[in-house]
Amino acid sequence: MPKNGLLHPDLSHDHGVFRKLTEQAVRLGTAPCHLKQLILHPGRFADFSLKTKGFFLDFSRQRMDADVFQALIRLAKETDACRTFSDMAIGKLVNTTEKRAAFHTGTRDFSGKNLKVGEVDVSAEMKRVNREIKDFSLAVHQEKIKGSTGKAFTNAVVIGIGGSYLGCEFAFEAMRQSIDPKIMLHFLPNVDIDNFNSVIKGIDPASCLWIVISKSYTTTETMANLAQAHLFLKANGLSPKDHLVTVTAKGSPGDDPSNPVLAAFHMFDFIGGRFSVTSAVGGVPLSLAFGFDCFERFLDGCHAMDSHALTTPESQNIPLVAALISIWNTFFLNYPAHAIIPYSSGLSRLAPHVQQLNMESLGKLSSADGRFLTRPGGTIVFGEPGTNAQHSFFQLAHQGPAFPIEFIGVIHPAYEGECATSKGVTNHQELWANMIAQTLALAIGKADDVPAKYFPGNRPSSMILINDLSPESLGTLLSFYEARTVFEGFILGLNPFDQFGVELGKGLASDIRKEIALKNQSPDHEFDHLGDAKKFYLETLFKGSLE
Amino acid sequence: MPKNGLLHPDLSHDHGVFRKLTEQAVRLGTAPCHLKQLILHPGRFADFSLKTKGFFLDFSRQRMDADVFQALIRLAKETDACRTFSDMAIGKLVNTTEKRAAFHTGTRDFSGKNLKVGEVDVSAEMKRVNREIKDFSLAVHQEKIKGSTGKAFTNAVVIGIGGSYLGCEFAFEAMRQSIDPKIMLHFLPNVDIDNFNSVIKGIDPASCLWIVISKSYTTTETMANLAQAHLFLKANGLSPKDHLVTVTAKGSPGDDPSNPVLAAFHMFDFIGGRFSVTSAVGGVPLSLAFGFDCFERFLDGCHAMDSHALTTPESQNIPLVAALISIWNTFFLNYPAHAIIPYSSGLSRLAPHVQQLNMESLGKLSSADGRFLTRPGGTIVFGEPGTNAQHSFFQLAHQGPAFPIEFIGVIHPAYEGECATSKGVTNHQELWANMIAQTLALAIGKADDVPAKYFPGNRPSSMILINDLSPESLGTLLSFYEARTVFEGFILGLNPFDQFGVELGKGLASDIRKEIALKNQSPDHEFDHLGDAKKFYLETLFKGSLE
Repeated sequence: MPKNGLLHPDLSHDHGVFRKLTEQAVRLGTAPCHLKQLILHPGRFADFSLKTKGFFLDFSRQRMDADVFQALIRLAKETDACRTFSDMAIGKLVNTTEKRAAFHTGTRDFSGKNLKVGEVDVSAEMKRVNREIKDFSLAVHQEKIKGSTGKAFTNAVVIGIGGSYLGCEFAFEAMRQSIDPKIMLHFLPNVDIDNFNSVIKGIDPASCLWIVISKSYTTTETMANLAQAHLFLKANGLSPKDHLVTVTAKGSPGDDPSNPVLAAFHMFDFIGGRFSVTSAVGGVPLSLAFGFDCFERFLDGCHAMDSHALTTPESQNIPLVAALISIWNTFFLNYPAHAIIPYSSGLSRLAPHVQQLNMESLGKLSSADGRFLTRPGGTIVFGEPGTNAQHSFFQLAHQGPAFPIEFIGVIHPAYEGECATSKGVTNHQELWANMIAQTLALAIGKADDVPAKYFPGNRPSSMILINDLSPESLGTLLSFYEARTVFEGFILGLNPFDQFGVELGKGLASDIRKEIALKNQSPDHEFDHLGDAKKFYLETLFKGSLE
Repeated sequence: MPKNGLLHPDLSHDHGVFRKLTEQAVRLGTAPCHLKQLILHPGRFADFSLKTKGFFLDFSRQRMDADVFQALIRLAKETDACRTFSDMAIGKLVNTTEKRAAFHTGTRDFSGKNLKVGEVDVSAEMKRVNREIKDFSLAVHQEKIKGSTGKAFTNAVVIGIGGSYLGCEFAFEAMRQSIDPKIMLHFLPNVDIDNFNSVIKGIDPASCLWIVISKSYTTTETMANLAQAHLFLKANGLSPKDHLVTVTAKGSPGDDPSNPVLAAFHMFDFIGGRFSVTSAVGGVPLSLAFGFDCFERFLDGCHAMDSHALTTPESQNIPLVAALISIWNTFFLNYPAHAIIPYSSGLSRLAPHVQQLNMESLGKLSSADGRFLTRPGGTIVFGEPGTNAQHSFFQLAHQGPAFPIEFIGVIHPAYEGECATSKGVTNHQELWANMIAQTLALAIGKADDVPAKYFPGNRPSSMILINDLSPESLGTLLSFYEARTVFEGFILGLNPFDQFGVELGKGLASDIRKEIALKNQSPDHEFDHLGDAKKFYLETLFKGSLE
């Protein structure tokens, strides 16, 4: 595996743009290319920042110069990333391994174009589902639909895992900063019974709705939690059919009239879980929480960034440039990870969403056309909000092994009350003073003869700005990360829409589950044939204690 | 910087144990040392697992064999890690750069030994503070101490950042799974005004206590949030002196009788923030939440692990062996990061706590005796609970760039109600089936001619088990991570107790704050002298929008 290899199987060591970028990475490692020098170049900030409506990206503190940038743009052109992106946005089968479209952008395209994916008139179907979401959420808010004892709904539990909740949770936590929820959402992703335990402590059963989200309606965790929810509803004398709604594929067991629920909303097989926030997966819970109009505003924000990504030339295309920066940092400068640090406590669940979006989409060893990549794709994504992170892991960010950081600033906070000042500034101003200072400190560093006080600097970061935590701004941010991820996948030559890497664990879990089920049926069942480790773990589970 | 260098400045390439380990790392990279082979060795599980009361560590799926293990134990002996640990536990000045002891283990040592650190009779002082915490929390629970309008306290807001909240938040979130809080805690670490905004939405002002935690009582974020809290209390007609308590150093501005508060609890300069959960920093909020007796049980759990770490020979010493594994993975096998995956939703805030503990302690480029290390210390630590993580980033864990994972299993869940079954097993059993399966899938992999279905395996993981989420078990877990971190620091030859790397950012933030304060005073103040980037950010902040 080449140490500095780009992973696209068609871009070998000898390919021109690859060789060029590898040479540039060596050059950028030399002293005159330290970031403290690069950022002083005249016009640096203007040349290395991009803006579209409501969204700003500053990459002037990335370790690159005009030569690197040009080579990266060439890489994007030679790998035809924009063409594949356009194909995706008109419903072509870009999910090659699963032979499907990847048409999440269609969920927020109200341009009136009609699109068929296979035999399905996608536009009409999406409109129908959105109309149903609108009518249903309004009926709940107007108390025309109520629980089985006649109580109005005030809480809802979302049962769904991975892509069926992470994006929705991010959007809910951010939107509720400025909009009071009509219905409070709770999330039950984990099959851990203590997740259920926490959730039921926060709800009144009679006024609680359960939203079950699973495309196949067979996801193990979701079905287990649904069984537990059924038990809970019955124990509280409530009728499941009056307290459950489903978001699932047409014709799945969750969309079966013999299994009556309050409502079933359809999701489509051409929209993957981690790209599904703007489908019914996010639409049902977010519309119940904030009203369908807020969800529509969120879709508008997404569509604005989609349009930018679709129509803007490579060198000004914000998510494309961000994808190239990620490729440069990961595959040429060989950084081990990528941090996302929003200076906004309302964006506290952004990093877990992007972590899934990025790592599940790009963590692959197979190319889109079924060959081995020369090096596995993807990188570790993690993050916590600033300024918290400054008091947590920024010691390592400044003086430990270096990694690139993406800062996110929110210009206008949600809070509208009276503000105290401390040291002459408001809290929001203090937050920004710190955010700006961190990007500079990482870049320029500080010489000192005392090693403990020496800062090497030359640590890359980008800055993203959005206006506020309004549904529109959050939609723009969501769509930026979606587009960045798929651009990166297209350039690397892999399929960002499948996830075969989760199958082996599922299979092995099934074998172990069978052993546990056997023991549940026959307490005499022994685990001796399973090898020392499995035997120990299963015996300990049944014993209930180490002692 | 040597690619495979251990960072201890005394352990050069030529040092015996270093050369030995480097050779072993090369040997372990060959096919016969694939984990699928290693785990089949007779006695593997017994030889590569360790147990103490209530705590189990299985490292049989780490990429090592007996030779590697012996060399690592030799490394621990040659660097005298256990002696430095013992020095720490009797209050010697192991925090060399700041010329202080690091005596967090003293907060849970009730053996009756009296210890002086400098001039302070530490044991007596710690007992005094704990007695004050016990009396105060009891008086609040018995409603002898109430708010200024006579309402009993039912909520408390913890104002503190970094080490002043992350450990407490982890313990609170975990303990509340099995113990209903008498006082509900809310956390206000971030200077972001939206953190304040969220907190005040969840409390009734008249029945809310504010706990201000800062050793120096000068931490910028904490003081800004305190100013905002003062404003809030006054706006609600409440007297700050009846609603505030402080946890701070003796004689700090928070311990000043001319600034009256309900109570001031002392913290000590020989206990660093990230090691302070078992001091008044965790003691005050956790005792208010669950009662002082629960906090004492938590301390008992910590003490049990402290005693194990202090008295157990290297090769059976659980936190020491875990530290050696971390060093092996980071500095010899060159993995880019370390994931912590608790299969317990109650442990959802463990990873952020350990992230700080580890990255702030070890992310250093300076040795304890003031020389440059040959390579910076520390690695990136991140994590989310399983099974959630399986549906998020485990695609990359199986098929992307490899990284070691630490699984944590909780044998007995907190939930005690009726359990549904699905596919013949309960939710807790399903959780365990998945946890066991993941460790195996990562280790053994699966051959397949189709690249998308090929799993390389050979991906290292450990498994930790604790009995439950009781205060005792959580204490053991906390102390394990503290001891592992300091052992790693001692072996690497750095000081795990300082954090000079956060100073540069603080200084630059102060400069920017001054500019903002000037503009607040004089709206005509211009930012033209600050360079393009700072000027743009500050103008955007004052304008309030990108447009």
